[in-house]
Amino acid sequence: MLGPNPDAPPPQVAAWRDRLHEIIFEADTPTGKAFDLGLIVLIVASVAVVVLGTLPSMQQEPYHTVFIALEWMFTGLFTIEYILRLIIVRRPWRYATSFFGIIDLLSILPAFIGIIVPGGGHLLVVRTLRLLRIFRVLKLARYLSGASELRKALYVSRHKIAVFLTTVLIVVLISSALMHVVEGSNGTEGFESMPDAMYWAVITMTTVGYGDVTPETPIGKITTAALVLVGYSLIIVPTGILTAEITHHAGRRVITTRACPSCMTEGHDANAIYCKRCGQPLDPEHTPPAT
Amino acid sequence: MLGPNPDAPPPQVAAWRDRLHEIIFEADTPTGKAFDLGLIVLIVASVAVVVLGTLPSMQQEPYHTVFIALEWMFTGLFTIEYILRLIIVRRPWRYATSFFGIIDLLSILPAFIGIIVPGGGHLLVVRTLRLLRIFRVLKLARYLSGASELRKALYVSRHKIAVFLTTVLIVVLISSALMHVVEGSNGTEGFESMPDAMYWAVITMTTVGYGDVTPETPIGKITTAALVLVGYSLIIVPTGILTAEITHHAGRRVITTRACPSCMTEGHDANAIYCKRCGQPLDPEHTPPAT
Amino acid sequence: MLGPNPDAPPPQVAAWRDRLHEIIFEADTPTGKAFDLGLIVLIVASVAVVVLGTLPSMQQEPYHTVFIALEWMFTGLFTIEYILRLIIVRRPWRYATSFFGIIDLLSILPAFIGIIVPGGGHLLVVRTLRLLRIFRVLKLARYLSGASELRKALYVSRHKIAVFLTTVLIVVLISSALMHVVEGSNGTEGFESMPDAMYWAVITMTTVGYGDVTPETPIGKITTAALVLVGYSLIIVPTGILTAEITHHAGRRVITTRACPSCMTEGHDANAIYCKRCGQPLDPEHTPPAT
Amino acid sequence: MLGPNPDAPPPQVAAWRDRLHEIIFEADTPTGKAFDLGLIVLIVASVAVVVLGTLPSMQQEPYHTVFIALEWMFTGLFTIEYILRLIIVRRPWRYATSFFGIIDLLSILPAFIGIIVPGGGHLLVVRTLRLLRIFRVLKLARYLSGASELRKALYVSRHKIAVFLTTVLIVVLISSALMHVVEGSNGTEGFESMPDAMYWAVITMTTVGYGDVTPETPIGKITTAALVLVGYSLIIVPTGILTAEITHHAGRRVITTRACPSCMTEGHDANAIYCKRCGQPLDPEHTPPAT
Repeated sequence: MLGPNPDAPPPQVAAWRDRLHEIIFEADTPTGKAFDLGLIVLIVASVAVVVLGTLPSMQQEPYHTVFIALEWMFTGLFTIEYILRLIIVRRPWRYATSFFGIIDLLSILPAFIGIIVPGGGHLLVVRTLRLLRIFRVLKLARYLSGASELRKALYVSRHKIAVFLTTVLIVVLISSALMHVVEGSNGTEGFESMPDAMYWAVITMTTVGYGDVTPETPIGKITTAALVLVGYSLIIVPTGILTAEITHHAGRRVITTRACPSCMTEGHDANAIYCKRCGQPLDPEHTPPAT
Repeated sequence: MLGPNPDAPPPQVAAWRDRLHEIIFEADTPTGKAFDLGLIVLIVASVAVVVLGTLPSMQQEPYHTVFIALEWMFTGLFTIEYILRLIIVRRPWRYATSFFGIIDLLSILPAFIGIIVPGGGHLLVVRTLRLLRIFRVLKLARYLSGASELRKALYVSRHKIAVFLTTVLIVVLISSALMHVVEGSNGTEGFESMPDAMYWAVITMTTVGYGDVTPETPIGKITTAALVLVGYSLIIVPTGILTAEITHHAGRRVITTRACPSCMTEGHDANAIYCKRCGQPLDPEHTPPAT
Repeated sequence: MLGPNPDAPPPQVAAWRDRLHEIIFEADTPTGKAFDLGLIVLIVASVAVVVLGTLPSMQQEPYHTVFIALEWMFTGLFTIEYILRLIIVRRPWRYATSFFGIIDLLSILPAFIGIIVPGGGHLLVVRTLRLLRIFRVLKLARYLSGASELRKALYVSRHKIAVFLTTVLIVVLISSALMHVVEGSNGTEGFESMPDAMYWAVITMTTVGYGDVTPETPIGKITTAALVLVGYSLIIVPTGILTAEITHHAGRRVITTRACPSCMTEGHDANAIYCKRCGQPLDPEHTPPAT
Repeated sequence: MLGPNPDAPPPQVAAWRDRLHEIIFEADTPTGKAFDLGLIVLIVASVAVVVLGTLPSMQQEPYHTVFIALEWMFTGLFTIEYILRLIIVRRPWRYATSFFGIIDLLSILPAFIGIIVPGGGHLLVVRTLRLLRIFRVLKLARYLSGASELRKALYVSRHKIAVFLTTVLIVVLISSALMHVVEGSNGTEGFESMPDAMYWAVITMTTVGYGDVTPETPIGKITTAALVLVGYSLIIVPTGILTAEITHHAGRRVITTRACPSCMTEGHDANAIYCKRCGQPLDPEHTPPAT
């Protein structure tokens, strides 16, 4: 175990820890709310600094020094927060290995790695991951309940989605093979190899259509027109499937207001008189007709 | 109070004011209808003048003078209308500070400001706001009932929309950081900074795909293909969520709130006369046909 | 009246006319089916001739003569069909002024006008209208029942669609005014006037994104990113509204299987026992409970 | 009959054939699972080899020889599998002429044809068809149940889809005729003939918008803006129709076909034990709890 000793600390330390726990982990108290708000401002500001720091004009003096100073300030504040969380939490190791524990660590690491390894430009991607922390501050759990319904709908539709994705992949493969043969032999730029043609097929079928790679031969143009019409209908079909599943789930949720007074079963229809599970009248004041 | 004296005006003035009120604010009388129609024509014509006046060929003589004259004519008419509304309405200050009061003021201000401040080309945006006035003439309230349902559906889905928007922002940030590192080091035009790359990410993910900024390296192309597929599914998911919510609300509206006075069954259609379960008339004042 | 004399023709003429009527207007008899099939082939072939005749290589000899000959052949056949329809039908004038009567006339006129007026290239558009005739051959009425439901859904949603369209127009106007001011003062090509900027706004907001007009200034790029995100959500909202309306209508259609044996009212719920309009039991064998 | 003799083989051969049948056709046994997994790896690897083999850098030595060797290895393995399937299966001719039998043959043919006919580059398309085999390995039948529902929804909507497709075709034809007349007379590149203009119309209406063909005249730009707005609504309408149909079908599936044996009420939930209207047990064999 790498975590601190779980033995009971002296009382005044425990009180101090409880106070910090209230500030950092709770959101209903005034200090907790202020801490959350401050954290949101810090996260957004640090991401803004990361984004704006890449502007060529900001990489000249005196801005460059300012941005490095700001980056160190944010890293310092996030490091203090990270250490405090490690101290306060009951199971520090579990926190450190959790999803948000890793995100917290990743948002302070780039600055420290930058000292050891020079030219850490690739760490830019890691820096933007800081924004993920906003999910926790905004009380992820509450939002996840909304997302879990979506996940359920996606889970129910998984077979259809699998058929759909395989179909898309096959359409992309066949059409890019066709275009590679047709346009490649014509020497059109961007169809020299299958991977190139697949990039074109994805860009075309999703209706992005950059125009950096376009067909030039008549057969290529006809194939393209056919492909985009297929891609067009491919957006309609999964939309319909997913909507139907979500509607279906939302529809079932409507029913679940009344509970049977005898067996507490929920999910009765609006016009149900008797419990569909135990046969007792749902409304105690309603006398069942003589049987 | 800046408004006129609310004390009772002499009777003939009151009658004149009532008459104007009927013309300007009501739509069921013939004069009210004529006024509304005239106003719609005026608004559309004034917006057309604003739009066409920016054409290079229209900024040469003799067209330029014609357009300035037309602009002053519309400003004059709208000013008269604005003053009349201020006079007629019971609480002029409340009208002047309301949404449509401000829009009314904004549609006459640009011409007057243009006299004082020369070169008011930036006021063009303000001029196009005139079209907003058409909402009031077309009896906004009636339309808003349709919109309020939409607002309700948006409100119910707000958590899901929040999760969705944050996800979109994170996807945009991570992919533009990745592309800035990959394509920026390659020197591809349009990926020199994070803001540039974010512009590219938004244009790509929404499937607009101008083609002014496109990836050139193989890794950049693979990232792009992955990103557009993500963007593709991002249009499907919120469509499904919103549709489900609207369907859900629309479905509840259909089932009327009427209950049978005999057996209390609910869920009758809007045109039902008798209870579908016990056969008793739904409306007690309605005498059932002799059986 | 331009139509033929409605007085009774001699019997053998009437029989001949009935026979033609059966062939041309009916689809269940073998000859009627053969006629319909032949007509579909003719229509599709004539449209194909119109399309392929515009190819530069087809406008050289000997192809040019072939295409003119084919065009005259189709015109001849369609003229015979048109005259036959005029003779057979009971009210020729009513047919001639009906939607399909005009379409039938328009599909033969271009060739005849081409003799009188030289260089009738603009008649190309009229020629493609021939394809509309395929709607009638494919028994339009049957399809229209499907379309009428759609029309109903569109009618019910008309207020929402009006709010939506006005909003789109206002968004297009405001954003193009903004971009004309921002990019126009920068001298970016394609933003010189409001109509130009509006073309750009429509192409961008509908996610077509040709890339022939793109923003160049940072403010223009930010405005564009904001605009496409708005356009992105504008596709989601009306999809949801229309789907909800169609689902709603489809849902009500399910109910309409049973008809009341007393008053023939349809549209009862699946669990209805009594007619919701006349109060009589829906199922005659079912004895109503003593009241 | 081309198949092998259906007479009973010697017992040890039969046992050996049963063992192979278990491995190749079944998925629940450990060996069957291992075979399926190996086959998926082989299919994906062979498709990857086909795709990567078209890269210019991979067509130079020593990679070229490696890719030819890999292609022969996959062809060899698939040939062995194909022959084994022919031997094991009871009706080899029926298998050979089935959809997957033909796909299996097509995935081995290109290599053999390549020996006879030199320069079989066009066989690339045939090679990518190998991916279709993954459908069978992933137990197509299970997925097809999901797809059959979709097919039902598409079948129910077929009239609407027919009206929709004809409308799209007519819109494409009319707008490309219009643009060919307007822009063609202006000499704009890409509108020289109707087929060219139709390619542009499809690319525009599906919002792909490459930008390789764009309008240049004011009338052409107005037509384009109108066309994309039409294309924009054309994506909304069929989405709504299809979603409504799928929702409708999904909704009907929930309401079970069970009717109460006492009062014949239908529409009970799948987990209902007692009738929701009269309180009697839905299943006569189920003894109701003492009341």
